[in-house]
Amino acid sequence: MASHSWVITDVARGIALDELTLTSGVTSAVPKGVSITKRTLRGGLQEGVDVVDIDNGRLRFTVIPTRGMGIWRAWCDNIQLGWQAPVHGPVHPKWVNLWEPSGLGWLDGFDELLVRCGLESNGAPEFDDKGILRYPLHGKIANRPACRVEVSMDSETGNITVRGEVYETRLFFTKLKLATEIRTTVGACSLTVTDTVTNVAAVPGEMELLYHINFGPPVLEPGSKVTLPIQKLAPRDPIAAAEIDRWDQYGPESPGKPETAYFVQPLGDGRGQTLALLHNEAGTNGVRVDFNIKELPCFTLWKNEQPVCDGYVTGLEPGVNFPNRRSFEKAKGRVVTLQPGEARRFTVEITALVTSDAVSTAREEILRLQTQAPPEVLRQPCLDWSP
Amino acid sequence: MASHSWVITDVARGIALDELTLTSGVTSAVPKGVSITKRTLRGGLQEGVDVVDIDNGRLRFTVIPTRGMGIWRAWCDNIQLGWQAPVHGPVHPKWVNLWEPSGLGWLDGFDELLVRCGLESNGAPEFDDKGILRYPLHGKIANRPACRVEVSMDSETGNITVRGEVYETRLFFTKLKLATEIRTTVGACSLTVTDTVTNVAAVPGEMELLYHINFGPPVLEPGSKVTLPIQKLAPRDPIAAAEIDRWDQYGPESPGKPETAYFVQPLGDGRGQTLALLHNEAGTNGVRVDFNIKELPCFTLWKNEQPVCDGYVTGLEPGVNFPNRRSFEKAKGRVVTLQPGEARRFTVEITALVTSDAVSTAREEILRLQTQAPPEVLRQPCLDWSP
Amino acid sequence: MASHSWVITDVARGIALDELTLTSGVTSAVPKGVSITKRTLRGGLQEGVDVVDIDNGRLRFTVIPTRGMGIWRAWCDNIQLGWQAPVHGPVHPKWVNLWEPSGLGWLDGFDELLVRCGLESNGAPEFDDKGILRYPLHGKIANRPACRVEVSMDSETGNITVRGEVYETRLFFTKLKLATEIRTTVGACSLTVTDTVTNVAAVPGEMELLYHINFGPPVLEPGSKVTLPIQKLAPRDPIAAAEIDRWDQYGPESPGKPETAYFVQPLGDGRGQTLALLHNEAGTNGVRVDFNIKELPCFTLWKNEQPVCDGYVTGLEPGVNFPNRRSFEKAKGRVVTLQPGEARRFTVEITALVTSDAVSTAREEILRLQTQAPPEVLRQPCLDWSP
Repeated sequence: MASHSWVITDVARGIALDELTLTSGVTSAVPKGVSITKRTLRGGLQEGVDVVDIDNGRLRFTVIPTRGMGIWRAWCDNIQLGWQAPVHGPVHPKWVNLWEPSGLGWLDGFDELLVRCGLESNGAPEFDDKGILRYPLHGKIANRPACRVEVSMDSETGNITVRGEVYETRLFFTKLKLATEIRTTVGACSLTVTDTVTNVAAVPGEMELLYHINFGPPVLEPGSKVTLPIQKLAPRDPIAAAEIDRWDQYGPESPGKPETAYFVQPLGDGRGQTLALLHNEAGTNGVRVDFNIKELPCFTLWKNEQPVCDGYVTGLEPGVNFPNRRSFEKAKGRVVTLQPGEARRFTVEITALVTSDAVSTAREEILRLQTQAPPEVLRQPCLDWSP
Repeated sequence: MASHSWVITDVARGIALDELTLTSGVTSAVPKGVSITKRTLRGGLQEGVDVVDIDNGRLRFTVIPTRGMGIWRAWCDNIQLGWQAPVHGPVHPKWVNLWEPSGLGWLDGFDELLVRCGLESNGAPEFDDKGILRYPLHGKIANRPACRVEVSMDSETGNITVRGEVYETRLFFTKLKLATEIRTTVGACSLTVTDTVTNVAAVPGEMELLYHINFGPPVLEPGSKVTLPIQKLAPRDPIAAAEIDRWDQYGPESPGKPETAYFVQPLGDGRGQTLALLHNEAGTNGVRVDFNIKELPCFTLWKNEQPVCDGYVTGLEPGVNFPNRRSFEKAKGRVVTLQPGEARRFTVEITALVTSDAVSTAREEILRLQTQAPPEVLRQPCLDWSP
Repeated sequence: MASHSWVITDVARGIALDELTLTSGVTSAVPKGVSITKRTLRGGLQEGVDVVDIDNGRLRFTVIPTRGMGIWRAWCDNIQLGWQAPVHGPVHPKWVNLWEPSGLGWLDGFDELLVRCGLESNGAPEFDDKGILRYPLHGKIANRPACRVEVSMDSETGNITVRGEVYETRLFFTKLKLATEIRTTVGACSLTVTDTVTNVAAVPGEMELLYHINFGPPVLEPGSKVTLPIQKLAPRDPIAAAEIDRWDQYGPESPGKPETAYFVQPLGDGRGQTLALLHNEAGTNGVRVDFNIKELPCFTLWKNEQPVCDGYVTGLEPGVNFPNRRSFEKAKGRVVTLQPGEARRFTVEITALVTSDAVSTAREEILRLQTQAPPEVLRQPCLDWSP
């Protein structure tokens, strides 16, 4: 059989492996140079965090079942993808109080390369007219554990896959299931996340979803640039508007500099495929994030140009919505309704670009997509467009 | 010696067994066919949950020390007692934020057959006039861990007992101790919960307590019926009032149907003993809950007739109070005051009825108790009566 | 080499020992009669709490890395230092919800001999004008785990040291690092806590810090007395003012008696060194807390004379501030500003006094310091003074 799979966690069947190591030395199902490892982290904020490490021989990355199947970091050749947050994560959700009255408790666990924001809600915290928190920053899914985790190796295609299931359910309220497949191929520089979100209730349900994909050094440095094919772009607020002429550039580490964000309606090809590119000043390394605007029509660029100790980082964030308050997104028609049993699929690919050629190729793809229309860059905030 | 006991957890003495298995193969103290097992669950929301499984040869059930000595599920012959919640529990309290501003965080851990609501408060969340949560739904006790757990086997009586101690204490505030004995007998179809709640403070304290005992399929199905000897019954609200003529019946799975609840003052025998019966449409299986109205004068019937995926479930709920806001119950005289050192005892018995005869016997007992007075079924909400 | 060290936890390097036992039987680096032990507590509220036990041959004490490197209890000869809280701790922070709307969730974990209150804030909970909690009681640091723990033994000096690092950081907000050294010497009756708090952000940061050092029986008993060299003392509120004439005395266990607190500006010697003394009625045992008013200019005396079951306890509490609402302390100039990278050091020594002579010596030291000026004891609350 070409494909082998190993169940790491299956709560329904009482399976929960503490450790697992799969290498060619352990099983003939795994090619030389490849490893699939499951560990349980110990100590500090990491105590009890389950992680799955995948090494395809060139690209390594760490998946975090305990944090909703997020991806902690990736490494390809000499390039690290991810960032250094002010917390030393990955952080177990028991240390994260999403319901802190400020609505910002989510930040205490935020240090991943890829973190999903959702599923019932994401975006800025929302308060009622008495000032009471109703939707905390970026929702719950990143702080829920997977109840099923499986890895598989297909020796024919060379595909290595981590599958996970995470539920965001409550009696009388939202009941959504996230099933993810995180896949890479032996020797490749990319990983693909394919998520299926299903409404497992007998009544219609609503969802928001945004992929908060974050990069710090070495890809991000003063002089780095971000590019994507743009139909329309607008600054989120006056602070971002004031810097609209350098929205795609990154400056030096600036203590206390406020974060900025830009909302983008990207252009895609005939099937909706598109990509965003981030690269260093010299254009010798970078990263591309491929996605589909039919699945994820809203793209947010988040920039935090504070010093590394305060999180020098940028987020490339495709989503079904923009990260505004949930009621605002709902009013704009950017909250998704799922009928009973209905599922939606979302695919995001992250590729480490380790040569100038790879960076150039991505830039050319973007330029080609941009030929459909000139980019409309608004100088003032405008949150009204429909996806 | 006829009785043997084994300490599973005793924090004061530094004892905390990760696993324990007692069968006739392991110790002569345990009869053939009987087993007493302690496990620690792993994975997902269950990670780190301690459970004690009792099998008396006919009835099996799972006690959850980590969740305040609740009872997860029971099985007797081919009948399962309990229900399928939208969470995959038992859920570790670290995933349950009781203080979520909605007051409904408790729902995230709710999937048991028997869950105690209390001890300082239970019932609907209560907010102050600024909208700030003061008493969260159903209180704290179900999300506090036992600090002492012991099992015992009496070879003379055939009694198998799980004992546990759970504290709900805070400096300057409520200081209550729950000591529970959960007992069954070799070959029996029932289990008995005997709780003692003690005010361990040097000043008077207050308590509420309600046993949320929940059943889904197969005992609950369209056509199932609930019966108990009634002095007075009233719907909780207009929604329940609109269905007052079928308060004791269960309809088909109905997507989005609002929950209903009925408040009952039951009739008891000379010593206060009474029972509630739930059985399937054919009357071939069911469950009875025996309790004493001198201990637990307030009975709530909770019905959720939504589809199984949204929790098709009913609660038979004897309590010292009704599950209204705490201040309301206090005003109605249904919050209990305990003097320093004072203790109150509460007993609830759950019996699986696995034959038509057993169902009939229970029904006849109820009819006999009902002969004392005709049932007074109010058609409109009335929350004023005193116990 | 005279000094040996052992790393217990180092998250950055993936080290987290579950157990460690160092005695003369295990390593020649440790003298006879001395032991250094690392355990992980199990069961109840203690489940998963890491503790380090130090026994210098005379003084034993337990450090709690999981609770921000607090000190649980100490024992010297026949004297226990610490108190019996209404919780059975040490309590894992997962059971402590700092953000409970009352602001008092911190109490659920409070049972230590020494607990740090801080670092962003401490003192009474502070609410905004909508009644929403902004700073919870006593801050976060006691409920954050250490990410690095190391013990060392210097065979030349006889010094035994536990070092730990705890971070209180959040993206866009406060970023403080606590590095502590808790040191004792073979055969000594004292332990010294030396803390360094560093602002690890690139922008200025603020801090509060108070050492909540708590004693119950046997040192505290009816007739016990507290002494320290006083420049100025004031009651915190009218309740404390009403008892100003016995501010330094402890009465019988009194059910329901409200807590009292006194704010003190102590006198120190030329270098700022000072001490507070608590001793039993007979003056045959007690404890002294040495500190420096240049580091910790504000001393709070906290008295809870309720019965032991409700926590008969007093706190000797040197701090950079008084435990009032943060904004109040800020207005009074008692919140510390740290420039980027700036560090402050704080030292507190706790000594068990096991003889009348030791008690007398401490009392004489205090009298000598008091000769600088007569104590100014205000009869009414006065919160205005600057440190």
